[in-house]
Amino acid sequence: MERTLDRDLDEIRQSLLRMGGLVEAMLDQAEKSLMERDADLAKHVIKSDPEVDRIEMDLDEMCYSVLARYQPAAVDLRFVAAVIKINNDLERVGDSAVNIAQAVLALSEEPPLKPYIDLPRLFEIVRGMVRDSLDSLVRQKPSQALDVCDRDDQVDGLYKQIFRELLTYMIEDPKVVTRALHLLLISRNLERVADHATNIAEDVIYYVEGRDVRHSAK
Amino acid sequence: MERTLDRDLDEIRQSLLRMGGLVEAMLDQAEKSLMERDADLAKHVIKSDPEVDRIEMDLDEMCYSVLARYQPAAVDLRFVAAVIKINNDLERVGDSAVNIAQAVLALSEEPPLKPYIDLPRLFEIVRGMVRDSLDSLVRQKPSQALDVCDRDDQVDGLYKQIFRELLTYMIEDPKVVTRALHLLLISRNLERVADHATNIAEDVIYYVEGRDVRHSAK
Repeated sequence: MERTLDRDLDEIRQSLLRMGGLVEAMLDQAEKSLMERDADLAKHVIKSDPEVDRIEMDLDEMCYSVLARYQPAAVDLRFVAAVIKINNDLERVGDSAVNIAQAVLALSEEPPLKPYIDLPRLFEIVRGMVRDSLDSLVRQKPSQALDVCDRDDQVDGLYKQIFRELLTYMIEDPKVVTRALHLLLISRNLERVADHATNIAEDVIYYVEGRDVRHSAK
Repeated sequence: MERTLDRDLDEIRQSLLRMGGLVEAMLDQAEKSLMERDADLAKHVIKSDPEVDRIEMDLDEMCYSVLARYQPAAVDLRFVAAVIKINNDLERVGDSAVNIAQAVLALSEEPPLKPYIDLPRLFEIVRGMVRDSLDSLVRQKPSQALDVCDRDDQVDGLYKQIFRELLTYMIEDPKVVTRALHLLLISRNLERVADHATNIAEDVIYYVEGRDVRHSAK
């Protein structure tokens, strides 16, 4: 089959969505491994990382090759430029899922600190942001992307609440310090995933509308 | 003066180095504000952030415009692709300097926890990595870039050591938990800056040699 710009752009789109699906699954599994204290599932998340790294490098290569081969302009150029950035953000979401899984492994060796209530809520909001940011790319819907950016404040608020609660635990009982720190690290990683989803949403707006809303949308 | 590819690429290079100089200065000032308990200097770091954000957006725009106008190939294309990524990494180094400065502000309201010994060492290694990664770009020296990647393990080791020490403090004395957490946050941000410097170094190797050493150099 002959190569054409449209065909190559479509291949890039498919690859990016596959990457998105993979890191979304890693986030899901990281949450499940935490809630169900499932060390095997946490290990599975950690083992997925090389696959994410591989797709990231392949996808970058595809983008550079399209730039060199076709010299795309206007919306096609913005699409490729956006993919180069989104690719990087997705890879870091995968890294965060791995960090969370590593904390889950450490936590699974000690008794549970407390029933988790805010943490699953944080997982839910953040996963929704990642899913919707990719969905706004597929549908080329800037309004959906803007909505993702708006949810970042909610995440920051919830993160601060969890931080304060864990701090209180640590001050009241030195025996829980290590476990509380692992939970803090999990929350912090989720807060970073929300930042990456926001970056992706901003790149979608840039790609579709050609305007740079970074540092102003938030 | 007529626009040419070489002239525009040179302008991009200058802009990137200005951005690098700015975030290096922010890191320096963040360290100084910590060591000298200087809240005003910490506030100055926080106030520098919008300038970094502005250069980031301008620089991206310049890169996209060069791609659209000249359709560069080979090493020029790799240079522009590398700058788009390095730009993003530098902006995040700026964010980390801001996070550190915010922790310094919080710490300046309480008595010092302990004399800092490992933390200035961590600052020094990390600042060197940022400086050398940009220097390897200017000199187009992959060997210098590889040397930056090699130092990342040293940073991870030092970070773990600081983490363990602060953990011990927290377990032994609940009164120091808040301060120890701020110091932990500072160390964690430095560890992330080292990751960004490593990314920059990997992008330099890609730009100069055309080979992707990510996920293998480390």
